[in-house]
Amino acid sequence: MPVLNSPNPVHFDFGALAQLPKALARLGISRPLLATDAGLRATGIIERIRTMLAGHGDLICFDETPPNPTEAAVLSALALYRAERCDGVICLGGGSPMDLGKAVALLAESAEPLAQYDPLQGGNKRVKGFAPVIAIPTTAGTGSEASYGFVITMEDGRKLTFANPRFLPHVALCDPELTIGLPPLLTAATGMDAITHCIEAVLASPVNPPADGVGLDGLWRAWRHLRRAVEDGSDREARWHMMMASAEGALAFVKGLGAVHSMSHAAGRIKSLRLHHGTLNAVILPAVLRFNESHCVEAYARLRSAMGLPPGADLARAIEEMNASIGLPRGLANMGLTVAHIADMVPHAVADLSTRTNPRPVDADDYAQLFRAAL
Amino acid sequence: MPVLNSPNPVHFDFGALAQLPKALARLGISRPLLATDAGLRATGIIERIRTMLAGHGDLICFDETPPNPTEAAVLSALALYRAERCDGVICLGGGSPMDLGKAVALLAESAEPLAQYDPLQGGNKRVKGFAPVIAIPTTAGTGSEASYGFVITMEDGRKLTFANPRFLPHVALCDPELTIGLPPLLTAATGMDAITHCIEAVLASPVNPPADGVGLDGLWRAWRHLRRAVEDGSDREARWHMMMASAEGALAFVKGLGAVHSMSHAAGRIKSLRLHHGTLNAVILPAVLRFNESHCVEAYARLRSAMGLPPGADLARAIEEMNASIGLPRGLANMGLTVAHIADMVPHAVADLSTRTNPRPVDADDYAQLFRAAL
Repeated sequence: MPVLNSPNPVHFDFGALAQLPKALARLGISRPLLATDAGLRATGIIERIRTMLAGHGDLICFDETPPNPTEAAVLSALALYRAERCDGVICLGGGSPMDLGKAVALLAESAEPLAQYDPLQGGNKRVKGFAPVIAIPTTAGTGSEASYGFVITMEDGRKLTFANPRFLPHVALCDPELTIGLPPLLTAATGMDAITHCIEAVLASPVNPPADGVGLDGLWRAWRHLRRAVEDGSDREARWHMMMASAEGALAFVKGLGAVHSMSHAAGRIKSLRLHHGTLNAVILPAVLRFNESHCVEAYARLRSAMGLPPGADLARAIEEMNASIGLPRGLANMGLTVAHIADMVPHAVADLSTRTNPRPVDADDYAQLFRAAL
Repeated sequence: MPVLNSPNPVHFDFGALAQLPKALARLGISRPLLATDAGLRATGIIERIRTMLAGHGDLICFDETPPNPTEAAVLSALALYRAERCDGVICLGGGSPMDLGKAVALLAESAEPLAQYDPLQGGNKRVKGFAPVIAIPTTAGTGSEASYGFVITMEDGRKLTFANPRFLPHVALCDPELTIGLPPLLTAATGMDAITHCIEAVLASPVNPPADGVGLDGLWRAWRHLRRAVEDGSDREARWHMMMASAEGALAFVKGLGAVHSMSHAAGRIKSLRLHHGTLNAVILPAVLRFNESHCVEAYARLRSAMGLPPGADLARAIEEMNASIGLPRGLANMGLTVAHIADMVPHAVADLSTRTNPRPVDADDYAQLFRAAL
């Protein structure tokens, strides 16, 4: 089975889930907390894992991860982790259970409160430990299994990005089998998350050519396979490539991301709307591509080439056409956002970690215009 | 300064050499052995390093590395390392001093003889330790600073490839300044080494898409900048990109290499001819590209795209034209090889580690034909 060229071992192929007992043993985890969500419980996979681990001790399960995981949910899962004397975390799901599980692993070995680890406030110096984590993605988009970042909506309403090389899952098991049957809309939204990661990473201002190469490869792969995965959820080849593109997006965004993610985080923190992160990225991406274009002429040529578009093709338009063809909304207005939300979102976008690496400087006025353009 | 997305810290930019005292301190090296060669001594860089390290203890220098480093030279350097009670290695130079320095680091902490660590003979299980290594390339081609492989010509006439994640230099300092003024022919030959690494890695049979992406990025970069670096050795931008492509080639060839390298190793072990590894790769590459083509249709399309060639362009011909335009020989016959050498080289090529990952199976008859085609 291929093990990727990544700072953590990423076991990648159909059947990778079967490596779980070995991975637990290697990491010395005897009482794992399984961080997942109610949707996954319904699929029967938790029982499959319980059977697989029979004889390896109990499986403690936290399945109440909300979409856009909150600080409150992290603390609930942490209380369970402590009460059950767990010694490691298995993250199973899309980005939400994975990010929640990473936050639990941090607070299991570093003091509360979580907010003190905000990297923009020098938080990385305060990290004391991070419990062993095994990440098992069940969607192809977030890439959290191959990333050392996680994002939590805090009780004070901010959506904070935590990023530290120590937060990389110790093992990732990427089994495309687990995405067979993922519904078309979720396939589309998570797939566009992977595509946005690849594109924003390639455009991000830091200099890191190997990461650019990985991002372009992920984009090449995802652009050719996303429609197939949406149209036929049992297309194993398309599922394999989409899961690979998802991991590659995360390997690429060690460079950083950009304004799309700042805006998605600012919108995703509005709890009443429960907006999907990948869908937000897909819908916001065209406006930001138009905004950044003058600052990234050569990189845009490489993105077009990876996507098989002719020289000079309109990238933003190509994304809009992809979104429409896979059933994603045309604008933020279709998702429940209005002009009235903009003033609340703008300062959060400005303060977001990803704003620092957007290839073109972005200020509050720019964000207000970008939100309007994306409505 | 950019630190690359690599398993080891690669400090990459003009001025990176200045990080050397800090790197020694971080690795706890107080008596480094500097592994280099006579050509480097003549440039004055050793005195520059000695001045830089004044106050950090003595600098023990082994400057007798031969081209295609031999087991005998490794043992001489090891004797000096031991006599001077060194505790780490600084490799300074092209691939030869880097590979020699890695072999010294291995034997400093694992028992002799070197041959027992041949990975094809289960040698990796016998590795006990590897002394701290700092790699400082002065050419742009080998990528040894970002690779965990090294190649030594053994006393019994074999050219063995050693490969183990533990053999990755602990720190790499990539300073394109050190390649300013490298003569055109050496720039050309080492540059084609980097290009061959990128191409053979992308074509190698193991599945590793992130490594493919890194190799394609390296090829994209090298193909655009090699002629510039050859024509004007002081072109800083071209030197930067060539050194980056060299590191990327090595990051990509974690996948493995192919028949070009098997043949280059088989020819490079003929001591009387003292053939340059990069030049051999450049001259052999077209014949192997013709041989592999039917097995790698999609990958060839991606290589063409990275090189800016039109769809369907003849890759082998493009390499031949590049070789001619930068002053490299047209064939192995121009380098002193004859039909009479083939019978001796073929079994070495068959037994070479890189033969296992060539995209099309290669046997002794194929190698004999390939050598004839490359003459």
